[in-house]
Amino acid sequence: MIRLNSRDPGFDQAFARIVSDRRESDAGVSDTVAAILRDVRARGDAALAEYTERFDGHPLTSDADWRIDAAACKAAFDNLPPDLRGALELAAQRITAYHAAQKPEDRDYTDAAGVRLGAKWGAVDAAGLYVPGGRAAYPSSLLMNAIPAKVAGVGRLVVVTPTPRGAVNSLVLAAAHLAGVDEIWRIGGAQAIAALAYGTDRIAPVDVITGPGNAWVAEAKRQLYGVVGIDMVAGPSEILVIADAANNPAWIAADLLSQAEHDPVAQSILITDDATFADAVEAAVETELQGLATQTTARASWNDYGVVIVLDDLAAQAPALANALAAEHVEIATDDPDALFAQIRHAGSAFLGRHTPEAIGDYVAGPNHVLPTGRRARFASGLSVLDFMKRTSFLQLDATSLAAIGPAAVSLADAEGLPAHGRSVSIRLGQ
Amino acid sequence: MIRLNSRDPGFDQAFARIVSDRRESDAGVSDTVAAILRDVRARGDAALAEYTERFDGHPLTSDADWRIDAAACKAAFDNLPPDLRGALELAAQRITAYHAAQKPEDRDYTDAAGVRLGAKWGAVDAAGLYVPGGRAAYPSSLLMNAIPAKVAGVGRLVVVTPTPRGAVNSLVLAAAHLAGVDEIWRIGGAQAIAALAYGTDRIAPVDVITGPGNAWVAEAKRQLYGVVGIDMVAGPSEILVIADAANNPAWIAADLLSQAEHDPVAQSILITDDATFADAVEAAVETELQGLATQTTARASWNDYGVVIVLDDLAAQAPALANALAAEHVEIATDDPDALFAQIRHAGSAFLGRHTPEAIGDYVAGPNHVLPTGRRARFASGLSVLDFMKRTSFLQLDATSLAAIGPAAVSLADAEGLPAHGRSVSIRLGQ
Repeated sequence: MIRLNSRDPGFDQAFARIVSDRRESDAGVSDTVAAILRDVRARGDAALAEYTERFDGHPLTSDADWRIDAAACKAAFDNLPPDLRGALELAAQRITAYHAAQKPEDRDYTDAAGVRLGAKWGAVDAAGLYVPGGRAAYPSSLLMNAIPAKVAGVGRLVVVTPTPRGAVNSLVLAAAHLAGVDEIWRIGGAQAIAALAYGTDRIAPVDVITGPGNAWVAEAKRQLYGVVGIDMVAGPSEILVIADAANNPAWIAADLLSQAEHDPVAQSILITDDATFADAVEAAVETELQGLATQTTARASWNDYGVVIVLDDLAAQAPALANALAAEHVEIATDDPDALFAQIRHAGSAFLGRHTPEAIGDYVAGPNHVLPTGRRARFASGLSVLDFMKRTSFLQLDATSLAAIGPAAVSLADAEGLPAHGRSVSIRLGQ
Repeated sequence: MIRLNSRDPGFDQAFARIVSDRRESDAGVSDTVAAILRDVRARGDAALAEYTERFDGHPLTSDADWRIDAAACKAAFDNLPPDLRGALELAAQRITAYHAAQKPEDRDYTDAAGVRLGAKWGAVDAAGLYVPGGRAAYPSSLLMNAIPAKVAGVGRLVVVTPTPRGAVNSLVLAAAHLAGVDEIWRIGGAQAIAALAYGTDRIAPVDVITGPGNAWVAEAKRQLYGVVGIDMVAGPSEILVIADAANNPAWIAADLLSQAEHDPVAQSILITDDATFADAVEAAVETELQGLATQTTARASWNDYGVVIVLDDLAAQAPALANALAAEHVEIATDDPDALFAQIRHAGSAFLGRHTPEAIGDYVAGPNHVLPTGRRARFASGLSVLDFMKRTSFLQLDATSLAAIGPAAVSLADAEGLPAHGRSVSIRLGQ
């Protein structure tokens, strides 16, 4: 853990190092992934079966080896303990409500020149969702990816997920049932992304691929960007907590650790204006770590990447730091969080006030928990209905409106050396 | 040119080949580009100067070698012939009006559970726009890229453009003045994209890079996707014209050629329900080609990639073909274009009726002419204000609303094996 004070002589340089520190593995998997993509494109299902046997120890022979059927998902859902089923249902209902309001409106109007202009939105035909195998297979992630696609109106929703040595995660199956997933294929890694993008004999291709994965999955999505639509490249998770001294130190410590337990390279940063409060939070982190089942991961993250910054004045100094960090999650634990939030331009998602722990947004609040990491909030947004939709602009002119604006198009086409462009306008003007 | 009739025995297979035919060069420039990106990242301006000398024959020594200043842009604008200046101004005004209405609205509401939810949109801090050198330097493209960024509220708009042997394009400078570009750097290729993404001593980095370019530029953008935001990967242009026999064949021929003159690998496709009309259009294409200054390019495109498809029934058959092609531009030249358009789900932009040549949309109508190519309209949209903005979701709970939905989050966190997530909620519930 690094502790900085804005009065320290080297503060600006030390903070700049934290901003520019990339915690992302540049795993050098590019060539391996490219070879897998080529192979699946060329050999289809046969290649999928070989890679799945090799990487997952799972033979793809019968139909049941390839797919998890809807009945298995329904059974997993029906067998959930009541409190967990209720929690999943509450999450699904609230995520659906938040995302339904994201649906964009079509436009269709005629302007003063008599030109009809507009845009109509539509869903992609099919979306693929990657669900990691093993410990990182989170039912909440399935809901956060599948529900926006469903709300967008996607007709076919396909999940791919590795099932190492045949093991499936019943919570994920239950979530797939609840979210209305249409197909689940028992494949993973770069080979699963290739199958979704190119299609195989068994698996029809999709138009958009989203969902978290390891370095191979992320690289496969990056390489296939343009063949299909993909969501943002994702790195390790991070949280910035801006908290004054009026907070309970244990609450803030719990928030910092909720991020740290994700990954040894996750990052938790506290910005406060009170050194004594910072001491208390540091002590509370130690207390909270005791007995935490995820202590090993959380401690590694906190020790290696944790940061505590003490400022003189939160209002005057914190927004500039927050904007430079452009963090995935930003908590503002003050009495008047809106005053600070108004000055924060770059953040994936904000959690306002003392009773809004980031984890509430991971599960049941409604906004998406798939958010830009690694300073990408400077230019990227969380997953939304828009990731599963696209827009067709349209125009309609008649003889009169074409006569009004057409000559300008002819002038520009001529100036650009594109005479056939000009001709397609002038021929309609009788020229 | 290929001519198909839906009654032909092999029609489905022949059409499927047209759909799957990728006209994009897989130029194998990936390794070269990766090396240039690494070099510019490591050596900054010195690397830029070397590449610019080598590829553009333009030495970067004095400040004037590096940048084109605002006064030069203003002078270029002031020196435009009046009709061209008027045409650019009309284009800028109409593009601005269309894009202004794209600005998304913020959300901020409190739901029945007492949870405050919302999303606020903001512009990226800085955007970079690539403008190709030489013949493909189009002032219309500069407007189509720069104006959405300006409308979005981007604070700093940077153009990079190669100036081979020092040559600048005064029309592009005039457009840059009109659009309010802040900086113009005389660099191009993958090295210019690297400079925009990573920054150098002279050039501050940007957050989003858009604009057309050659294979090296496109590959550089693809490799830097995630370091910065980029617009869609772009391939050769294409048009699909759906026209009944009541059209003037010469008008339709002009439309087909307006696309063909862009590039020898551009594609123009006519779908009609009348074989005699198809003959007439083919003949008109030959007539129009005579004397066309861009005849060589247009003829190569039409001969190699032109397609004429004759159907029995436009309403019953054309939409499915159009959706499979998911073309960049779709003209519907019929009396009731809306009836067909309602069935077309995948298209970059649509041009409705007999007086709406595609070229009017390239210049002055208002919608963006940067559109998804190569069937990407299945999942992608034309350039818009949204490409230069991002959204921060936010939440605010109080003790009561946290008590209402918090226990469900604790259940899910426990089930996912993330106890610190649950703890950050339960500690606030006094548990």
